[in-house]
Amino acid sequence: MINVGVLGATGAVGQRFVQLLADHPWFHLQTLTASERSAGKPYGRVVNWRLDAPYPDRVSDIVVTPTTVESLKGCDLVFSALPADVATSLETEIADAGIAVCSNARSHRMDPDVPLVIPEVNPDHLGLIDVQRDRRGREGFIVTNPNCSTITLTMAIAPLRAFEFHDVRVATMQAISGAGFAGVAAMEIYDNVVPYIGDEEEKIETEIVKIMGTFDGSEVSPASFQVSASCHRVPVIDGHTMAIWVDVKESIDEVKKVYATFKSPISNLPSQPAKAVELLEQPNRPQPRLDRNRGRGMTVSIGRIREGLRFIALGHNTIRGAAGASVLNAELIYSKKYL
Amino acid sequence: MINVGVLGATGAVGQRFVQLLADHPWFHLQTLTASERSAGKPYGRVVNWRLDAPYPDRVSDIVVTPTTVESLKGCDLVFSALPADVATSLETEIADAGIAVCSNARSHRMDPDVPLVIPEVNPDHLGLIDVQRDRRGREGFIVTNPNCSTITLTMAIAPLRAFEFHDVRVATMQAISGAGFAGVAAMEIYDNVVPYIGDEEEKIETEIVKIMGTFDGSEVSPASFQVSASCHRVPVIDGHTMAIWVDVKESIDEVKKVYATFKSPISNLPSQPAKAVELLEQPNRPQPRLDRNRGRGMTVSIGRIREGLRFIALGHNTIRGAAGASVLNAELIYSKKYL
Amino acid sequence: MINVGVLGATGAVGQRFVQLLADHPWFHLQTLTASERSAGKPYGRVVNWRLDAPYPDRVSDIVVTPTTVESLKGCDLVFSALPADVATSLETEIADAGIAVCSNARSHRMDPDVPLVIPEVNPDHLGLIDVQRDRRGREGFIVTNPNCSTITLTMAIAPLRAFEFHDVRVATMQAISGAGFAGVAAMEIYDNVVPYIGDEEEKIETEIVKIMGTFDGSEVSPASFQVSASCHRVPVIDGHTMAIWVDVKESIDEVKKVYATFKSPISNLPSQPAKAVELLEQPNRPQPRLDRNRGRGMTVSIGRIREGLRFIALGHNTIRGAAGASVLNAELIYSKKYL
Amino acid sequence: MINVGVLGATGAVGQRFVQLLADHPWFHLQTLTASERSAGKPYGRVVNWRLDAPYPDRVSDIVVTPTTVESLKGCDLVFSALPADVATSLETEIADAGIAVCSNARSHRMDPDVPLVIPEVNPDHLGLIDVQRDRRGREGFIVTNPNCSTITLTMAIAPLRAFEFHDVRVATMQAISGAGFAGVAAMEIYDNVVPYIGDEEEKIETEIVKIMGTFDGSEVSPASFQVSASCHRVPVIDGHTMAIWVDVKESIDEVKKVYATFKSPISNLPSQPAKAVELLEQPNRPQPRLDRNRGRGMTVSIGRIREGLRFIALGHNTIRGAAGASVLNAELIYSKKYL
Repeated sequence: MINVGVLGATGAVGQRFVQLLADHPWFHLQTLTASERSAGKPYGRVVNWRLDAPYPDRVSDIVVTPTTVESLKGCDLVFSALPADVATSLETEIADAGIAVCSNARSHRMDPDVPLVIPEVNPDHLGLIDVQRDRRGREGFIVTNPNCSTITLTMAIAPLRAFEFHDVRVATMQAISGAGFAGVAAMEIYDNVVPYIGDEEEKIETEIVKIMGTFDGSEVSPASFQVSASCHRVPVIDGHTMAIWVDVKESIDEVKKVYATFKSPISNLPSQPAKAVELLEQPNRPQPRLDRNRGRGMTVSIGRIREGLRFIALGHNTIRGAAGASVLNAELIYSKKYL
Repeated sequence: MINVGVLGATGAVGQRFVQLLADHPWFHLQTLTASERSAGKPYGRVVNWRLDAPYPDRVSDIVVTPTTVESLKGCDLVFSALPADVATSLETEIADAGIAVCSNARSHRMDPDVPLVIPEVNPDHLGLIDVQRDRRGREGFIVTNPNCSTITLTMAIAPLRAFEFHDVRVATMQAISGAGFAGVAAMEIYDNVVPYIGDEEEKIETEIVKIMGTFDGSEVSPASFQVSASCHRVPVIDGHTMAIWVDVKESIDEVKKVYATFKSPISNLPSQPAKAVELLEQPNRPQPRLDRNRGRGMTVSIGRIREGLRFIALGHNTIRGAAGASVLNAELIYSKKYL
Repeated sequence: MINVGVLGATGAVGQRFVQLLADHPWFHLQTLTASERSAGKPYGRVVNWRLDAPYPDRVSDIVVTPTTVESLKGCDLVFSALPADVATSLETEIADAGIAVCSNARSHRMDPDVPLVIPEVNPDHLGLIDVQRDRRGREGFIVTNPNCSTITLTMAIAPLRAFEFHDVRVATMQAISGAGFAGVAAMEIYDNVVPYIGDEEEKIETEIVKIMGTFDGSEVSPASFQVSASCHRVPVIDGHTMAIWVDVKESIDEVKKVYATFKSPISNLPSQPAKAVELLEQPNRPQPRLDRNRGRGMTVSIGRIREGLRFIALGHNTIRGAAGASVLNAELIYSKKYL
Repeated sequence: MINVGVLGATGAVGQRFVQLLADHPWFHLQTLTASERSAGKPYGRVVNWRLDAPYPDRVSDIVVTPTTVESLKGCDLVFSALPADVATSLETEIADAGIAVCSNARSHRMDPDVPLVIPEVNPDHLGLIDVQRDRRGREGFIVTNPNCSTITLTMAIAPLRAFEFHDVRVATMQAISGAGFAGVAAMEIYDNVVPYIGDEEEKIETEIVKIMGTFDGSEVSPASFQVSASCHRVPVIDGHTMAIWVDVKESIDEVKKVYATFKSPISNLPSQPAKAVELLEQPNRPQPRLDRNRGRGMTVSIGRIREGLRFIALGHNTIRGAAGASVLNAELIYSKKYL
């Protein structure tokens, strides 16, 4: 078993990490960090648990430690649910201390020697770990997963690599959990749509071309298509829905076939869903409340493929789009012997 | 005063008609029709009033009549809030009987000799009334307003006619009131997005090019740009929000100026808002709950103009997008002496 | 294995039955009935599955039969999710045909020889099955579970039987799923409370005193306390929350102890939760979104016990309050050898 | 014209004050205070206006001042929308400086010489102003209005003074705006009920008996009935709904008559609604979305009067329950020549 920790374990994404890791077959959850105020107390006492699935008993007694390098003694790998301003320097310190970091923070995603990975899309980019170790002269390393909306979009676009395309447009309808427990006031979003999410469009537009870029053994050349995003918050708890246009020239049937026959390049990872993408044929799907939990929240659903080429994609933003993405990355890292 | 009636006065759009016409300076509301079940009873007794604004007392005592031509004795003009299956033949019968019909139904929108009008966009298309009268040999006529989402989109696109463009994409986030009082079950839309609204994308794509087409005195040639729509229902009571892309080549500043200086081609109509389109500068606007009531629900709000060219538009779907649109058409018809 | 069927298998409660019975250790789900329109087709093709948990594959191929006695050949027991108007005579016919009926319908709940049972509250009332068989001269029988709000209230009150009380007041805040998939329009309940649910207050007030009444081997004498209910629909998907007052004289600590130490009179039933009632100590619990799934939706949560005596109770209305209640009744019936 | 100011003008209640005072016939809005950060800038630039009614232009240019006594030069009366921790000492200082304070804060409500007033219920309690002036040796004074839920409850109970009663129970279903713009996170209340609002039950239970108490010219003796409250937050934007039980012995018809014939003891105040309480006869009313705006948000609606005696009351929490209550108090104060 690999000993793991969660940085920022009491927040929205931190709780998802705890839920996914509590009974993990490969990873032993031993360390939970939080603010100084919570340090020294059992997790069960300090966490304001907000997930509707039952609270995992085993972790209730883990004594929370401060979010510092010193707290991570004995961890082989840590998951970071830290805000970007804290993550930037601390994740570097942790990697310098020889520990592997799987981060959901945005801080290092675009660093040239840091892999930005979705296992079903660009598992080969993990090769940047060696580049990173070499260049920085350390055993530890940082691997990142994309922003929640980037993940759903990228998983929806990746199967289309078989075809040529240059122009992607996406209008997102994003869930409130994407902003954390306190990120959106009820008075802001109830009976409302907020057509703006800070930096979200930029993240989508830059991250996807790195992920779908080509790794030549030393660096990643970004993919050559362009993405234009319009991001909106809607009154939905979990699940980002997206209306997507791509300028592929192939027929609807050819495109459907690509989704229906998509084969994941990875296998045998515990958090991996049976289907990375699932094509739904009903005319009014996918819908967040009905489809976000497919594949235990790890499947991206595709539907309404129409000429244009237009279609709808949906992914669970705090599972596939955050904590689950990081855990799947860690499983890939472990299976590829980087630990 | 022009004597007017409302066909289908108890439904969602019918109630908006009643609200807008109860104290209208030019139109005297004298007839309200509904189903056989309600006929013969005072409106105040049969209507299940669902608007949050107070119920207009004066109309409470109007005795509801059946939805037939015979019920419309004495009306110069009627507003139709009928479902399409009833409207198709009945509106024709009413026009044949010499009465003007301003219809919100989809039935006759695409008929070649029926004007499909937004007063601020194509008031000259009213000239089709003469064509219609000639061709059909009748004094009465039908004038239609577009579908609720078409109206907001078209008002947002029309000011860009100063520029060249060929390709419009729109992702809508539409309110539940657009489907009528009982059209969407709470279990369907709560904590959810439904990425499908029957026929909506087709309506948008065909109606806008007729409205923005050229009328040469005898027929309308459709505009030459193409629209690709993706329509979604979101948990919002009133107000359709839209993410729009248009391939104009001009700069953001030039585009902003067009909206900021847009002059309506009409004036002095009672239901006309001070601004047909209003450019909002805050980075997170327009929002349906905060902006749908601008111009008493008749203004379309524009915001977030970014390179791409991308922007957000918002309109009140049951006022500007339905009953208010029909009433404004009637005012234009009256002011142009067609009655 | 006992062969079972579900009457009305495509509705909101019917789908919950299917979900709970698909992999049941004692019951083999063999028959699913629905309207004539669906009969003859595989369940997977006719059902509009609306639960967020994944759809059970095994039942997808079951060919739906009409809702008639003839369709139930081979069933030992059937679960009824029928509306009351259909249930009244059909359930009697089915019992007359020798089949056991566990019904969620209101039709026979108050029949003197029909048990109205919550296994943790009045398992002995199953003795009425013998009375019913004798009196009606048939092998089959009907057993009912209470209305969804009655169940939560009764499970919350039952532990207080140790004390004397006469007066119960309850204000309910009920979920929209209680009215079925199409029962509440979004326009009715969004940003709203509807302070009225037809017949609900009467059901609560009469059912609870039958359930908590005394069975002397031949009939049930109702309990002697009185209940005054005020029922309200709130914008919540699942989970009925209740503010309750009871005139017990004991201290808060004594009352808390009763809940904390409540022992269920039944054991080893597959659907039975570890705790029938669970006392939550946080000051702002129970809450429907966070607590409705306790005990896989079968636990009633209790909180905020204050002087007065006032407290809050919460139960999942379509699991503990409907389908799960019926299944648990069937398990009790089977374990007591009535089949 | 009386010169007035608003303390804390940018918050939820502060914005309502601005809306109600912008065109007031008796009061000239001259001063708006906010935090140091906003001071010195025009109101229109610093306020994040969140009400759906249009923004009042005239006040846009008022330069915001800090929330201090010095800022209030020239004000005859100020309205306080301050949080209690700031209000406690500052309101006293302002009154000591000779200015009248109409406060929505809880700080001084229970002070023996401070009137806690609802004009339609206890206008005579304004006599405490003389007591306060005498006792404290100052010209200025503080008058308070009750907590938002107390106001609705008290206006619903006050007409029953004609009868004898001792025991009032109330279960509230309160709107999210009651907690201010940022007071409730969307993740907390969406698809949820929170059965706890800090201190709310205590406020209701103590404030109502002061308001309905007897003023003998020098002090208020509290009313002798008891109230037991259970307070809950529900997903509604505006409007507190309440289920109420009162142990009056009179018949439903006698009670209905009391509401139908209730005469307000005040008259000719600009903010006073035509009906202080309005009895609705439809079986499913009042409902917050449909009825909160009756009497421009100043009417309390009553419905579902049933034996028990049980009924439903509804009031707009930020108008009648906060800013509107304070403004009405100020109008009463002015009309009674206390200024």
